[in-house]
Amino acid sequence: MAVNLVAPDPRGLLAVPGVELGWAQAGIRKPGRKDLLLVRIAAGSQVAAVFTKNRFCAAPVLVAREHLAAAGCAVRLLLVNTGCANAGTGPAGLAAARDSCAAAAALAGCAPGAVLPFSTGVIMEPLPVQRLVAGLPAAFAALAPGNWGEAAEAIMTTDTVPKAASCRITLDGQPVTVTGIAKGSGMIHPDMATMLGFVATDAPLARDTLQALVARVADRSFNCITVDGDTSTNDAFVLIATGQARIAPIAGAADPRLAALEEALAQVARQLAQAIVRDGEGATKFIEIRVEAARDAAEARAVADAIALSPLVKTAFFASDPNLGRILAAIGKAGVADLDADRVQLFLDDVAVARDGGRHPDYREEDGQRVMSAPEILVRVVLGRGAAGATLWTCDLSHEYVSINADYRS
Amino acid sequence: MAVNLVAPDPRGLLAVPGVELGWAQAGIRKPGRKDLLLVRIAAGSQVAAVFTKNRFCAAPVLVAREHLAAAGCAVRLLLVNTGCANAGTGPAGLAAARDSCAAAAALAGCAPGAVLPFSTGVIMEPLPVQRLVAGLPAAFAALAPGNWGEAAEAIMTTDTVPKAASCRITLDGQPVTVTGIAKGSGMIHPDMATMLGFVATDAPLARDTLQALVARVADRSFNCITVDGDTSTNDAFVLIATGQARIAPIAGAADPRLAALEEALAQVARQLAQAIVRDGEGATKFIEIRVEAARDAAEARAVADAIALSPLVKTAFFASDPNLGRILAAIGKAGVADLDADRVQLFLDDVAVARDGGRHPDYREEDGQRVMSAPEILVRVVLGRGAAGATLWTCDLSHEYVSINADYRS
Repeated sequence: MAVNLVAPDPRGLLAVPGVELGWAQAGIRKPGRKDLLLVRIAAGSQVAAVFTKNRFCAAPVLVAREHLAAAGCAVRLLLVNTGCANAGTGPAGLAAARDSCAAAAALAGCAPGAVLPFSTGVIMEPLPVQRLVAGLPAAFAALAPGNWGEAAEAIMTTDTVPKAASCRITLDGQPVTVTGIAKGSGMIHPDMATMLGFVATDAPLARDTLQALVARVADRSFNCITVDGDTSTNDAFVLIATGQARIAPIAGAADPRLAALEEALAQVARQLAQAIVRDGEGATKFIEIRVEAARDAAEARAVADAIALSPLVKTAFFASDPNLGRILAAIGKAGVADLDADRVQLFLDDVAVARDGGRHPDYREEDGQRVMSAPEILVRVVLGRGAAGATLWTCDLSHEYVSINADYRS
Repeated sequence: MAVNLVAPDPRGLLAVPGVELGWAQAGIRKPGRKDLLLVRIAAGSQVAAVFTKNRFCAAPVLVAREHLAAAGCAVRLLLVNTGCANAGTGPAGLAAARDSCAAAAALAGCAPGAVLPFSTGVIMEPLPVQRLVAGLPAAFAALAPGNWGEAAEAIMTTDTVPKAASCRITLDGQPVTVTGIAKGSGMIHPDMATMLGFVATDAPLARDTLQALVARVADRSFNCITVDGDTSTNDAFVLIATGQARIAPIAGAADPRLAALEEALAQVARQLAQAIVRDGEGATKFIEIRVEAARDAAEARAVADAIALSPLVKTAFFASDPNLGRILAAIGKAGVADLDADRVQLFLDDVAVARDGGRHPDYREEDGQRVMSAPEILVRVVLGRGAAGATLWTCDLSHEYVSINADYRS
């Protein structure tokens, strides 16, 4: 049950000139569901990506990183499968990822190094390369610029709602488009990017500008979410810039148009990232945690993490129970060694909950109850130490989360 | 439903000469349950303690720390209440803790500074001092050396089984006794000690020796457990040495009898710590996580923590589902930056699960299934980096955990 999240209207998803998408039902894990996605990228495009920092990162992550480093601007194809993460699969997994790329490259008429592979699904199970390869011709046949909605469906695993977003801005009097898709619902605590996110624009960007952008956009979107604190082995966030918009190339950090484009990219990425939380496994509440007046960003994030990851806080949200001392306990255990509890203030939406190390004199249980009962809740913590801050989006911990993850493979 | 844990037979709990225990039903939160405990300690005893590092630590923790620092060997009374943590209660909470000590001291005929207060229960609610004080005479009247079993009951909150352990060793041909009690079931991730643990011995020990002992014993017991990763605001582990055993004082680190005593203390403390995990909220499995061949103890502990705290690993244990790639993902996200996944080995009890970065060639799903179905499971991770290690005890994450914590205050 996703929180205030419906499937995007496919008519609202704008095609990005230079990008085509095709899907197939390859039967990777189960028959009869879309589980294979191809993204064909026009020649002359730039592609940049950030990947999981999990040390058990998946074979496709290793191969995609390698191809990206070698091919640079020559990436022509993204190859995505669900149903199997191809992680914890050793040398055989690496061979499977390379074989998949080679098969797709043969059909596309490009070098295997121009293909970036992505996988998501169960860890430590072998990738069924033959079934994947057998599904490729159908996916190629389906390639079209208007398939963003179906592409969003093709990368779902435990997601209950497909995730896609789009926006258009005007630069130099010309339209510039940004459209993206993402998947993810559990094992969400991105360390660099989310489970899988692909965002494309037709803006013309140099490669180093794009690489800097992808990291900054990830930090403002996918890196601000957590469902269960578990960083996936397969996280990847890819930014494609086809350069087919009718504007002069964006030169770099000094170009005044870059800020407007970055806002558009961040808006789409944030919408996708928040969609992942809204569709978090078992989620019934969408919670924004805003930590203010911290000494630096790292301690603000540590406090936000401690709140967002506390099972006791998350179950209280699920129960709509204003057992708000649990939030104080989470703040206190966040590892800020010299935190002065007496200077901390806690707010729930507009309700002042705590100050001077304890309950706010005006706080009334019924006010806390009112906020906790809402499907969207803002937790605001003022540390009273400085001017830095951090924002995190997360969800509650419900019976349904346990059910989903106790049954995931069956 | 506790995992392989039954209430201790009161006849097996050995009295410690110099320690008397008394309880009452003070109606702190709910009527008709034991919620007040007094521990009277004979003159000449030594008391040492370690407390939570949570920055929102409770008022009684602040007062107990202060009294301990000032009174030293003069501690004569422990005063414990359940039903209210007296944490996140600001200056009023501090006054309530001091008033409670003063009332108990007046009845005991000692200085208020000779009383150490301890509280456990809901955070950010005021301590009902009047009801607590009204319960004191009954608790004093009940003081007796044989009350360890009832004392264990008097400190329970969401615990389903009282926790107590006892052992007797012989030093210099004389019996020396160690007996302890503990409580805890949720909000368990001790950073210094557990929710509440009290262990007493009649061994004669100097104060500095005792203080060193309490930290070492905590590191071998309470600091090796986690239920939900939430460090409580009220954790305390207290070690009492009455010195009434008929042996010469144990001189310090050089005394050869110290090692035997430390083993006995660690054995009792470990039994109590493991009882907390066995009675972890909603627990259906007891899991030992042993990380070996780490470069240092800190990284071994980080890997053990990452596994023990992963909701995905914990729900897989609940489901008896050998979805063991989740353990690899947890190892990979533990923050060991230069971990070589290809050198990591994973065992479940006697079953080799992973090596060379992937599934062990001999691993069969039915073997994993067999181990996962047992109520007690050993997860052994060999990192292949050095000679350090860490052991952690934890439990699974079940529907019942969510139910308990969604309903806790109601």
